[in-house]
Amino acid sequence: MSDGVGQVQTRTLLVYDEQRPLVLESGVRLTHVEVAYETYGELDEDGANAVFVCHALSGDAHAAGYHDGDRRPGWWDNLIGPGRPLDTDRFFVVCANVLGGCKGTTGPSSTDPATGRPYGLRFPQLAVRDLVETHRALLRELGVGRLLAAVGGSLGGMQVLQWSIDHPGELGGAVVVAASGRLSAQNIAFSAVAREAIMRDPDFNGGDYYPASVADGEPAPRRPDRGLALARMIGHITYLSEESMRQKFGRRIQDAVEPRYGFDVDFEVESYLAHQGQSFVERFDANTYLYMTRVMDYFDPFADPAYVQRQVSAAAETAGGPTRYLVLSFDSDWRFSTEHAREIADELRGAGAPVTFRELSAPHGHDSFLFPIPEYHRTVAGFLDQLKAARVAA
Amino acid sequence: MSDGVGQVQTRTLLVYDEQRPLVLESGVRLTHVEVAYETYGELDEDGANAVFVCHALSGDAHAAGYHDGDRRPGWWDNLIGPGRPLDTDRFFVVCANVLGGCKGTTGPSSTDPATGRPYGLRFPQLAVRDLVETHRALLRELGVGRLLAAVGGSLGGMQVLQWSIDHPGELGGAVVVAASGRLSAQNIAFSAVAREAIMRDPDFNGGDYYPASVADGEPAPRRPDRGLALARMIGHITYLSEESMRQKFGRRIQDAVEPRYGFDVDFEVESYLAHQGQSFVERFDANTYLYMTRVMDYFDPFADPAYVQRQVSAAAETAGGPTRYLVLSFDSDWRFSTEHAREIADELRGAGAPVTFRELSAPHGHDSFLFPIPEYHRTVAGFLDQLKAARVAA
Repeated sequence: MSDGVGQVQTRTLLVYDEQRPLVLESGVRLTHVEVAYETYGELDEDGANAVFVCHALSGDAHAAGYHDGDRRPGWWDNLIGPGRPLDTDRFFVVCANVLGGCKGTTGPSSTDPATGRPYGLRFPQLAVRDLVETHRALLRELGVGRLLAAVGGSLGGMQVLQWSIDHPGELGGAVVVAASGRLSAQNIAFSAVAREAIMRDPDFNGGDYYPASVADGEPAPRRPDRGLALARMIGHITYLSEESMRQKFGRRIQDAVEPRYGFDVDFEVESYLAHQGQSFVERFDANTYLYMTRVMDYFDPFADPAYVQRQVSAAAETAGGPTRYLVLSFDSDWRFSTEHAREIADELRGAGAPVTFRELSAPHGHDSFLFPIPEYHRTVAGFLDQLKAARVAA
Repeated sequence: MSDGVGQVQTRTLLVYDEQRPLVLESGVRLTHVEVAYETYGELDEDGANAVFVCHALSGDAHAAGYHDGDRRPGWWDNLIGPGRPLDTDRFFVVCANVLGGCKGTTGPSSTDPATGRPYGLRFPQLAVRDLVETHRALLRELGVGRLLAAVGGSLGGMQVLQWSIDHPGELGGAVVVAASGRLSAQNIAFSAVAREAIMRDPDFNGGDYYPASVADGEPAPRRPDRGLALARMIGHITYLSEESMRQKFGRRIQDAVEPRYGFDVDFEVESYLAHQGQSFVERFDANTYLYMTRVMDYFDPFADPAYVQRQVSAAAETAGGPTRYLVLSFDSDWRFSTEHAREIADELRGAGAPVTFRELSAPHGHDSFLFPIPEYHRTVAGFLDQLKAARVAA
């Protein structure tokens, strides 16, 4: 096992400004968009080895390696590094915080140039397409053209999917892991309750809870930490499988031999969830949670099948050939179950795209896409190797 | 189809007082316990036709018929009435609000005789066993001895199970529907988040949010309605199956042709959940929600298999013979899945009890036990008929 990519830094680039604004799918313009990103490995001279990593709801640009002083590596470190599936000895890997995020890329906590204060809920509604456009703008700045592949899990996979459809010829391969092409009523319901938890928090204050939101001299407002922690706890239950929870916690009692029979945290699973909620509020912004869950609710890339078919055909006619898809699901994932992945694969095949679909066995539920599961890693590595070989041969 | 049991009333009886207090499993004494109950049908002269109905988390004593002025009948009206499975032409049916409830039976919203104020969280912690004892005390007051059967779904089924084990010879039959003998980590997790939503509501005030909790002249405190509504919304998602949500709501947009792309309620499933949350706070007490979910978390009737075996053997040696079990689950129930029911059946059989176990097909998830599903109703009716026939023959 290698040591990974080592020490890394998050950088920031201004990718849209008044001269070249970002026009969102809604028609709204953003005249100042910065993007936080990290890169691992080196871009080949022919620029043919770039792999873009799209992150999920609570992710960020720091996908691999260590920031100065950190004890834990980036969120997908087991997948990215020398000798790992996204092999940084061979690939130039880029990961960026999404538009609307809270880890360096412009989002609701950023300053609205029109007012000089944080956007809050005045930040415009986003579509997955807008997230993709921002990534594309970053790659233009970095001098990267056609990607060997884009890779993402969950909301990351949804970005990869939208990218592949909207921009024929830009992706050699599209790796769509544990994603959905259309959220179910149950998916939307869980997100709706999570949003309600945030918005009903008295400290939410209509989204204006940032220190810079108040006039000078007023005390800094409280943040909706209770609501955001609840949202995270609700979400977290859906990220784990019932079986993984059983194995991890069972009915064990926390710090005690006997149950205490009260309303305090008593079972280990309760203390785990409370910890997840608390650590989340220390690193995430409640408004970004609202925007990103809503982006997922409305996502519907196959709403117009004729469009998808045209785009897939157009991709096949580009010099690089069609985008090849690898669609993966995990058998214990009940948030975006195999049924969701199979629908993606069926829609893409129906539009004429070359698709490899595989359900992998893993016990970790939706979170499986973050784990170093050997068959999963072999499948991704093999797919990227084929893309690279095909590109070299071409 | 008959018209049901017609107009009914909830009555209240004092079943424990200072002279005959209720000693809880925890050892704490309650010196004033009133029970709200309803009865349907007539008790036979030999007292052999009584059926007790145990209700679930959010239920109450009003299981069938109409209260004066009501447009909707009691919560299990489709099961109880002339010609229905709990046939009130033949059975004397009793239903009572549980101890710790908020619909007439003593609970956290009741006045603590020691202080003259509502208990709030000073109400003692309860066990399923305590709920059962209170039902038994009511039946003693009503002059009912051995029951033809006790019947219950979810927490109601858990009461039936505990009753059958603790009191050999009291139940001819035990109908345990959509219940669990031991909550999973996932079950506990959902309840834990629901409780957190209530307890983190700033208006929860440590459980002292009742008007009578404040000194005379002070304004009535606000109730933790936001938290209770969130708890209900979280719970409600787990009561429905993914399939029933898909059929009921799909991705339809509420009151509009086009999505509004905002954080307001937009999808129909969101408006449904918001309505469920709102209507719940109008009829339920947040503290009771805390107590009842905790009762379920700690429920573990098979923790001591030797005890269960002794009790089952003792029942077989009573004049009425062993308690016969009907254990039912629904294939779309993912809150208390068939696995939970099968474990109950296996534990009971292992202890030597006669058990009929059946998984029924129904699309409504955990809530299926409330629906008039023909095979379900036939199964319950047939089981009760057999018990009645066996009793007549004996």
